Amino acid sequence: MPVIELHVMDGYDDDAKKRLCEALTDAVRIVLPAPPEAVTVMIHEMQPAGYMRGRQHRSAAPALPDPVTLVRTYLSAMEAREIDLARDMLGAGFAMTFPGGVRMTRLEELIDWAAPRYRFVTKTYEGFDALQSGGEAAIVYCRGTLSGEWPDGTPFDGIRFIDRFEVTGGLITLQDVWNDISETKGAT
Amino acid sequence: MPVIELHVMDGYDDDAKKRLCEALTDAVRIVLPAPPEAVTVMIHEMQPAGYMRGRQHRSAAPALPDPVTLVRTYLSAMEAREIDLARDMLGAGFAMTFPGGVRMTRLEELIDWAAPRYRFVTKTYEGFDALQSGGEAAIVYCRGTLSGEWPDGTPFDGIRFIDRFEVTGGLITLQDVWNDISETKGAT
Amino acid sequence: MPVIELHVMDGYDDDAKKRLCEALTDAVRIVLPAPPEAVTVMIHEMQPAGYMRGRQHRSAAPALPDPVTLVRTYLSAMEAREIDLARDMLGAGFAMTFPGGVRMTRLEELIDWAAPRYRFVTKTYEGFDALQSGGEAAIVYCRGTLSGEWPDGTPFDGIRFIDRFEVTGGLITLQDVWNDISETKGAT
Amino acid sequence: MPVIELHVMDGYDDDAKKRLCEALTDAVRIVLPAPPEAVTVMIHEMQPAGYMRGRQHRSAAPALPDPVTLVRTYLSAMEAREIDLARDMLGAGFAMTFPGGVRMTRLEELIDWAAPRYRFVTKTYEGFDALQSGGEAAIVYCRGTLSGEWPDGTPFDGIRFIDRFEVTGGLITLQDVWNDISETKGAT
Amino acid sequence: MPVIELHVMDGYDDDAKKRLCEALTDAVRIVLPAPPEAVTVMIHEMQPAGYMRGRQHRSAAPALPDPVTLVRTYLSAMEAREIDLARDMLGAGFAMTFPGGVRMTRLEELIDWAAPRYRFVTKTYEGFDALQSGGEAAIVYCRGTLSGEWPDGTPFDGIRFIDRFEVTGGLITLQDVWNDISETKGAT
Amino acid sequence: MPVIELHVMDGYDDDAKKRLCEALTDAVRIVLPAPPEAVTVMIHEMQPAGYMRGRQHRSAAPALPDPVTLVRTYLSAMEAREIDLARDMLGAGFAMTFPGGVRMTRLEELIDWAAPRYRFVTKTYEGFDALQSGGEAAIVYCRGTLSGEWPDGTPFDGIRFIDRFEVTGGLITLQDVWNDISETKGAT
Repeated sequence: MPVIELHVMDGYDDDAKKRLCEALTDAVRIVLPAPPEAVTVMIHEMQPAGYMRGRQHRSAAPALPDPVTLVRTYLSAMEAREIDLARDMLGAGFAMTFPGGVRMTRLEELIDWAAPRYRFVTKTYEGFDALQSGGEAAIVYCRGTLSGEWPDGTPFDGIRFIDRFEVTGGLITLQDVWNDISETKGAT
Repeated sequence: MPVIELHVMDGYDDDAKKRLCEALTDAVRIVLPAPPEAVTVMIHEMQPAGYMRGRQHRSAAPALPDPVTLVRTYLSAMEAREIDLARDMLGAGFAMTFPGGVRMTRLEELIDWAAPRYRFVTKTYEGFDALQSGGEAAIVYCRGTLSGEWPDGTPFDGIRFIDRFEVTGGLITLQDVWNDISETKGAT
Repeated sequence: MPVIELHVMDGYDDDAKKRLCEALTDAVRIVLPAPPEAVTVMIHEMQPAGYMRGRQHRSAAPALPDPVTLVRTYLSAMEAREIDLARDMLGAGFAMTFPGGVRMTRLEELIDWAAPRYRFVTKTYEGFDALQSGGEAAIVYCRGTLSGEWPDGTPFDGIRFIDRFEVTGGLITLQDVWNDISETKGAT
Repeated sequence: MPVIELHVMDGYDDDAKKRLCEALTDAVRIVLPAPPEAVTVMIHEMQPAGYMRGRQHRSAAPALPDPVTLVRTYLSAMEAREIDLARDMLGAGFAMTFPGGVRMTRLEELIDWAAPRYRFVTKTYEGFDALQSGGEAAIVYCRGTLSGEWPDGTPFDGIRFIDRFEVTGGLITLQDVWNDISETKGAT
Repeated sequence: MPVIELHVMDGYDDDAKKRLCEALTDAVRIVLPAPPEAVTVMIHEMQPAGYMRGRQHRSAAPALPDPVTLVRTYLSAMEAREIDLARDMLGAGFAMTFPGGVRMTRLEELIDWAAPRYRFVTKTYEGFDALQSGGEAAIVYCRGTLSGEWPDGTPFDGIRFIDRFEVTGGLITLQDVWNDISETKGAT
Repeated sequence: MPVIELHVMDGYDDDAKKRLCEALTDAVRIVLPAPPEAVTVMIHEMQPAGYMRGRQHRSAAPALPDPVTLVRTYLSAMEAREIDLARDMLGAGFAMTFPGGVRMTRLEELIDWAAPRYRFVTKTYEGFDALQSGGEAAIVYCRGTLSGEWPDGTPFDGIRFIDRFEVTGGLITLQDVWNDISETKGAT
């Protein structure tokens, strides 16, 4: 039933428009119990010359990167220990908190902290959730299971984890991590 | 810059409209780097007699409850061990997974499982995040810290936790829990 | 897929709006192969103070009567020989043409013409079709079968007929009639 | 006064848009007594990337053929006895009913049936009316006069006829015919 | 041809809406050579709960007074020497400039300045023009002729004048006056 | 808060659209006390094939020239005594009224009239105001100061003036002039 019209500046690519359509559909469905096929989104694109706010023409700012893709790329870089690549994706004031409430701000700290904990770890993703907060940050959740090897070479897998990221202006500013590593270790 | 027009059936209350406006604003801002004050949402309400889809008039289904409020109420009921109240908020096929991958489907199981783990536990909330998935379920995240007493009466607090809920048709169908209890205990 | 928005003056009743919604749905579907459930019609009603054309506020003219209802009422009146009632539904310049190309302008003529043809006749309707012409007139088609008695009292039924009406400003200005009476009689 | 906005997928040709504009104008005018110059139609075309229903982009189905043109072509083919061409324009379940209630389903039947009735017949059109039914079919009416030769070579003309067609998915599925042939013959 | 849709908060009275419709019609016609009857304005009124900018509901500020009415009232008050009434209509920083470039800021100054010039003066209006500047002020022009008596009691009339006012927030902040008094006197 | 949508035929250049956006913004702001940055204008351009009024497609008439630019060009031509150029900018029925109520219809008259008054005169502009009247004419006001030489060669400057022009169909049809020349001369 609901029909959503979005008026935006001309020039966004198909991927941005797809993300807009999906996000608007979902936005309505969190409040209204409309079946998906009853939610219609229509984007009207405006030429800059045909748009004015405050008696001034405006131009379109580039679309933000998809925060899920951003987080995925970051996690892959970290798994592959491509620290430089990962660091380029971090914004000012970046901080991360790991199980036990360990707070770090530099990726090198994290690597040192992880060293006695496991030889390596690989993430298998079960799902991502992304939303825009009311403030500046987009929030990305990523959950699934960890597999890898303990320091003594014993393999492990199936350990539940969840990460919460805040992304502002296309850069990661916060990472919070919870997992069952300690639970699993304690159980052995 | 973006202007969003939503056409819905007449009759939603102010709270539902506020939630719609906020969700639509956020939906656009996860893709477009528009400052909030540049995002305008306008809701046009339609009389049933002035709306037709498929050559049939339609009537408005009641708005869904706010999933964050729902989850908050559920968590309060659980803390207060108001099991009947909490159970009424669960949907068909409800399942919950707790640290260590423990999967349960009945609240009584959870109470038994928790008994040897702590005398009681209270949640201090740091934040809630809610979004509509592409499917039926709304997703609610709730995070913060746990305080309470261990079975031996020793108090604890500041233990990080995060819960992920799925809410379908106003009922909770999934709860996934991660926390640092084991991490904390292991550290003691 | 198609979404139709109609802006009209406030004040039309539900029946007029239903007829508008249906007519607009059908208008689109004669050109686009959209399944009906994909055609959405939304009527926006304007207060007179919020509508201006040519720098003048306008007021809404009353809706036209449904031409199908009008024709049905006329045909019932004629069957019941309520000539005065039927005559009131005729517009200036009314003319009717009956099988054999017989053209008449007054209902009394018709009654005289019919007298030697049948004692009475009753219409069983199979369907009505109505459309607006590009000009002033709405067109109504009515088809079905005739039953009744021949002048000698022999009953007849199942004789196909079709009538075409033009309706202007809520009055009937033209009636064209075709039927198989002669075909049937010739066959006996 | 009425303003109609139609949102459709981009890509329809000018003829389809003209037919849409005319049909929408007429749809409003069958209910509202607006003078034609007060009815405005505006078509907004959407890029597929800017349209989503049910969280899915949609593509535009090709416009349906103009049913009046279709019927005209069919009638010309029949007059010229181009049976193969005419047959290609018929849909599944095609049936036709001729004066006297004669029901046929194949064009060859019709030719056999007509043979003893007239040597040939030509239609002079007085007008066509077309509308979309509430169901799948578009309805086309065609009326005018017949001229030709009786089996004995005597010419005739000016005999009133009317045909009613149903057109579904661009194919003719029903033809109903009424005319004054019998009336005329009976009169001779 | 042009169709203008204005979306504003609900609650403006009919006079404000009339002024909006007229001003929008004129705005388009200063650029497009559309005949007036081809310019349509439609106002859509939004409930506060259905409007959000910057993730905040907004409420409607009261309409500004019609600046022409304001200026007319001020001029009448001045003619009637109702100085208190007139003074209440002046905004901060008010200044006026009279023929010869005489600049004054208080109405008492004006009265003193005028005393040796004429016993009294009455304005006959030929027309008012009003527009919104790109800045804060609305501009009102008022022109016509002056009649009255010279200090010696000789009557005069038909002397051309024009006043230009700036009105900000419903108060007059600037008055510029030109007239032919000196021209006329010089000619005598 | 106010959002203005303008639907016009496709094909106007960026300057015409800028003038439309500005004029529409100002039109709203003369009635509503919205800060400029809260007024949004969106122009939707229609293809001729997607626009119909009165069951007829329409084509876009060329935009009118900016009346301020027109008046400026006219005044420059007059200052430079390019009479032919200036005359081409005058419409049928052109009349001008100068201080003292002197009414003239031909530019040559004006030149003769001015000859004994000053050797030459140059305008320094303080500002232009333009608006569309409710009728056919656009109104342009131009004000500032005059400088030049009196017939005896004495220079003058800083003399206040204001001109009012009516512009219809891109041609000047009326010029009314007020200034302080006589006031200044009388004072010397």
